[in-house]
Amino acid sequence: MKQNKQQLAKLQQLIGYEFNDITLLSKALTHRSADKSHNERLEYLGDSILSFVIAEALFKQFPLVDEGDLSQMRSTLVCGEMLAVIGQSFGIGDCLILGQGELKSGGHRRESIISDAVEAIIGAMYLDSNIEVVKQRILNWYQSRLQEIQPGVKQKDAKTRLQEYLQGIHQARPIYLIVEVIGSDHEQEFVIQCKLDNDDNQYMGRGVNRRKAEQAAAQAAINNLGIK
Amino acid sequence: MKQNKQQLAKLQQLIGYEFNDITLLSKALTHRSADKSHNERLEYLGDSILSFVIAEALFKQFPLVDEGDLSQMRSTLVCGEMLAVIGQSFGIGDCLILGQGELKSGGHRRESIISDAVEAIIGAMYLDSNIEVVKQRILNWYQSRLQEIQPGVKQKDAKTRLQEYLQGIHQARPIYLIVEVIGSDHEQEFVIQCKLDNDDNQYMGRGVNRRKAEQAAAQAAINNLGIK
Repeated sequence: MKQNKQQLAKLQQLIGYEFNDITLLSKALTHRSADKSHNERLEYLGDSILSFVIAEALFKQFPLVDEGDLSQMRSTLVCGEMLAVIGQSFGIGDCLILGQGELKSGGHRRESIISDAVEAIIGAMYLDSNIEVVKQRILNWYQSRLQEIQPGVKQKDAKTRLQEYLQGIHQARPIYLIVEVIGSDHEQEFVIQCKLDNDDNQYMGRGVNRRKAEQAAAQAAINNLGIK
Repeated sequence: MKQNKQQLAKLQQLIGYEFNDITLLSKALTHRSADKSHNERLEYLGDSILSFVIAEALFKQFPLVDEGDLSQMRSTLVCGEMLAVIGQSFGIGDCLILGQGELKSGGHRRESIISDAVEAIIGAMYLDSNIEVVKQRILNWYQSRLQEIQPGVKQKDAKTRLQEYLQGIHQARPIYLIVEVIGSDHEQEFVIQCKLDNDDNQYMGRGVNRRKAEQAAAQAAINNLGIK
């Protein structure tokens, strides 16, 4: 184990779960750049658990809301940005085990590394306990966020809002083109252009994956068109 | 309830679960075209449960396989085509409650309606019992498929295989362009073109969503290039 005991003790206090097998927590904090025994399998497992727990919570909380709004609220709650905020509230950034390359490259991928680690911690808690225990912990983390969330416009992402606006004025759907993919496998950046009918502006977006770049391009169009 | 009792009894026998509240099963079989009380919320819930159960099964079955291969195997096992096959083995097609529009339009969307109903049945079983019971049923359905599945090339989808081939010969990634979106909200068809560097062929794909159309376009390129 490469983190110091005090850090791990504090982290467990913040996440509200004490591990029987502390090596699981340590592994959940280990980025693939640091060690062969890294957190990606735990992240894969945790991602599916988180998705299930939040899906069910929203299903129960909003008995009359349709599937589209439920899915959108779930996306909002389990997105990388949200997980990174949760991870930062646990101080995960200080507990991560990173390889030299990641340490040198500084902050620009840190957010996604933290959000991946949050999912990995969920997977680790599950292996260390059971689904009911993990569910309670996740619902604790999300308590205020679940209380605040409402179906409707605020959860709609930029692509959805842009498309709905265009539908409203009877225009064609936007087209998203990949302009460029920069970098190698694990450090990619996508550049996407959002093209609108009868609009020669070049709305460009960048992101670490295609989805984020498309959202950024849609947001650029929204900003320029003054869509509320 | 609009199905006859015999049909529902047979269906329960085939899925291996007897409902305490049979109206849940009936709702799971009701398409949105038929009734306000349709299966889409149950499908939303069932989708996340299925994903979790299969994710965990693969995680345990393949302790040394990395996250990428696990994700790909999961995609193979939970994809619409696979769910439609499972649903057809249960004879779900005969139990569906469809509106007039869907009945008239005949078979072309039937596959996706069946696969959605399978997910809805999972959601319904969960509400009627608990996660452990549902897990066992799903694992029974998937027993032979889990035994057969292996990490590696067979699970790789067309886009992945095309991209890996291009990487191998040091060519740029393919670009996928939306050529056309046909139809209205719930009956869309996407037409996508896959563009390769130094290749003037037009590889086109069609599908009920963007992902399927992109896969079809990639498959067209694979076929033409003779990629194994």
